[in-house]
Amino acid sequence: MKRPTILVLGAGYGGLTTVVNLQKLVGADDADIILVNKNDYHYESTWLHEASAGTLRPDQVRYDVKDVINSSKVKFVQATVDAIDVNTKKIATSAGEFTYDYLVIGLGFEGETFGITGLDKYALSIANVNAARQIRDHIEYQFATWSTEEVRDDARLTIVVGGAGFSGIEFLGELGNRIPELCKEYDVPKEKVRVVCVEAAPMVLPGFDPALVEYAVRQLESKGIEFSIGTPVVEATPEGVNIKKGEDEFEFIKAGTVVWAAGVRGNRLIESSGIENMRARVKVEKDMRAPGFPDVFIVGDCALMINEEVNRPYPPTAQIAMQQAVTIAKNIVALIKGNETEEFVPALKGTVCSLGEHDAIGDVMGKKITGTKASIMKKVIDNRALYMIGGVPLLLKKGKFTL
Amino acid sequence: MKRPTILVLGAGYGGLTTVVNLQKLVGADDADIILVNKNDYHYESTWLHEASAGTLRPDQVRYDVKDVINSSKVKFVQATVDAIDVNTKKIATSAGEFTYDYLVIGLGFEGETFGITGLDKYALSIANVNAARQIRDHIEYQFATWSTEEVRDDARLTIVVGGAGFSGIEFLGELGNRIPELCKEYDVPKEKVRVVCVEAAPMVLPGFDPALVEYAVRQLESKGIEFSIGTPVVEATPEGVNIKKGEDEFEFIKAGTVVWAAGVRGNRLIESSGIENMRARVKVEKDMRAPGFPDVFIVGDCALMINEEVNRPYPPTAQIAMQQAVTIAKNIVALIKGNETEEFVPALKGTVCSLGEHDAIGDVMGKKITGTKASIMKKVIDNRALYMIGGVPLLLKKGKFTL
Repeated sequence: MKRPTILVLGAGYGGLTTVVNLQKLVGADDADIILVNKNDYHYESTWLHEASAGTLRPDQVRYDVKDVINSSKVKFVQATVDAIDVNTKKIATSAGEFTYDYLVIGLGFEGETFGITGLDKYALSIANVNAARQIRDHIEYQFATWSTEEVRDDARLTIVVGGAGFSGIEFLGELGNRIPELCKEYDVPKEKVRVVCVEAAPMVLPGFDPALVEYAVRQLESKGIEFSIGTPVVEATPEGVNIKKGEDEFEFIKAGTVVWAAGVRGNRLIESSGIENMRARVKVEKDMRAPGFPDVFIVGDCALMINEEVNRPYPPTAQIAMQQAVTIAKNIVALIKGNETEEFVPALKGTVCSLGEHDAIGDVMGKKITGTKASIMKKVIDNRALYMIGGVPLLLKKGKFTL
Repeated sequence: MKRPTILVLGAGYGGLTTVVNLQKLVGADDADIILVNKNDYHYESTWLHEASAGTLRPDQVRYDVKDVINSSKVKFVQATVDAIDVNTKKIATSAGEFTYDYLVIGLGFEGETFGITGLDKYALSIANVNAARQIRDHIEYQFATWSTEEVRDDARLTIVVGGAGFSGIEFLGELGNRIPELCKEYDVPKEKVRVVCVEAAPMVLPGFDPALVEYAVRQLESKGIEFSIGTPVVEATPEGVNIKKGEDEFEFIKAGTVVWAAGVRGNRLIESSGIENMRARVKVEKDMRAPGFPDVFIVGDCALMINEEVNRPYPPTAQIAMQQAVTIAKNIVALIKGNETEEFVPALKGTVCSLGEHDAIGDVMGKKITGTKASIMKKVIDNRALYMIGGVPLLLKKGKFTL
């Protein structure tokens, strides 16, 4: 009998955790495991706010895929996936066509601009490690240019962050720490810099405990960050953003940097894959398979699962992606052996939102925590992700140990 | 009798060396010494090619003025000089008007664009520490942007350096070392990067020994740097530069970065000062005074002195500026005491042109040197400038000791 081919698309939290679990469960002769990823590295998408603000270097937020896979069991292909067709079982990539017996789609999120004019062109997005690096360099270039120009345009020093959700707030937390450093490095008076968070919804961090949210806003405001809440961005231009402040009231914020951190969606390849989806996310079966395609699993940001307790989707977090991956690896092995698959049951350990290196808010095992305690917990969570994928060696190499 | 006021404009090599020598020679009750400088720091203008390429951090190429002046003898004023009038003895600055009994003008060089269209707008210039920082950040931003864009514009990775004189070659030497690092940091394939040196004159490093020049060009070419010699830049645009290759033959080089390193002139304030000048440089008397103004001394890049041996002006180097400053300090003291001034006699110790951290060419005490030996000599020269201005403490703080 021919060995089955397990094809995993994407080396994010979901895809990579699937592979490292498969390589433990499957013998080298039992299956061909192929991992396809655009880059030869994995990056910590939950750390990108730090790389974007410049508080971590890009190389600190990524590691080589080959450092965590067992190359005697897994074939790694560095390629971009161009198209997925689950009806013909054909996957088109920049390194040629692949087919599979079992497919795992872990292609991650894309930014969602909600059709707002100019955003895709004039706003930067914390989308991946390259984009994060560009945001850092863009801000630094604005500061450098301000320092040299004869007629100084203070708007160069204005940073608009669109979105007061998880990504926006974590990025603002890093900026709050980074701005004073930048001012020193570039000889810029602190009072010239303006950081404005613009949010369409009437609240910051929806879903978080209101007392924790209040703490977060107070801490960020104490670092000089301004909030404009309930004021949607209606347009981005090369000069800044136009926001809607009332029925017929608009305000233009001139800004050298606009970072869009509001809303993510699934990978667009899902939409033409033949799988039923909603904005590129697939409402998966209880065992993580795509409805109607018993040989296709979806992991991470492209998977949509409803938390029935609150009747809302689970948030697309690294924590859940990695838990899903463990179940998916087991279920593939079960299918190969002709056994029953098991149901995925998320174990929600809590959520911590960073507010910069030494501050955070968190809801962990039902306990509300703030400040240093929450910040330590955040690092524990970050380190746990490293440990789950690469064990102690990766943890020692890439872990966050400054508390 | 009223104490005379000695006003020194500029804290470059010339101005600052004048002040540190004056504070040794003059008692606190003998004169008021005022130093006016735009920034509260001195920067090593001979190290700017390193800051521009990113091989030294901006803070490594500068130090605080207050670290080297004796504040009981020297009053430091951080201000921009707006106008000099030697007929009325009025110096207008952003901190008000000053007058003087003795004036020392050490306002340094400005870039010379020879009226070439677009250069002032679209080319960056290694003019000062802020400009150097901007060049570094500009190049990094181009690399970062290339890494993120969907349709990659390889011209972003092309750097045109205008000028194959001292500044241009030293900058190219640093780029030769920095580009491989940048490629690694930004995931850019080395072969995508293009560095082109464009020079109007028919030769590289005019005035240098031809064998040394040949060595320099070979070394830089081995690092992938291209030379286009005898081909003037006729226009700069937002997209790159147009160069003249023959009678009616032009070539457009598309480039994300254009750095203009060809030609310097004196500070433009000289031109409206009332002193006779040629392109803002003053042909000084033998004792460094401005012709017709016995209370005005010119030091450094704004001073023009003919080397009668070769009937050509001395090059505007840090070495000569500091030697001039020593003579100027002595001559001011002589004038206060009613004594004769002395003639300035340059002691040319040699010239070393860096080709990156571990390589250089030099003509030192009549000996031609290359490679590591020349590179060590270059660091000795750089360290000597620190020692002459700030003694051992400054040398230890800012010296270059990695050989």
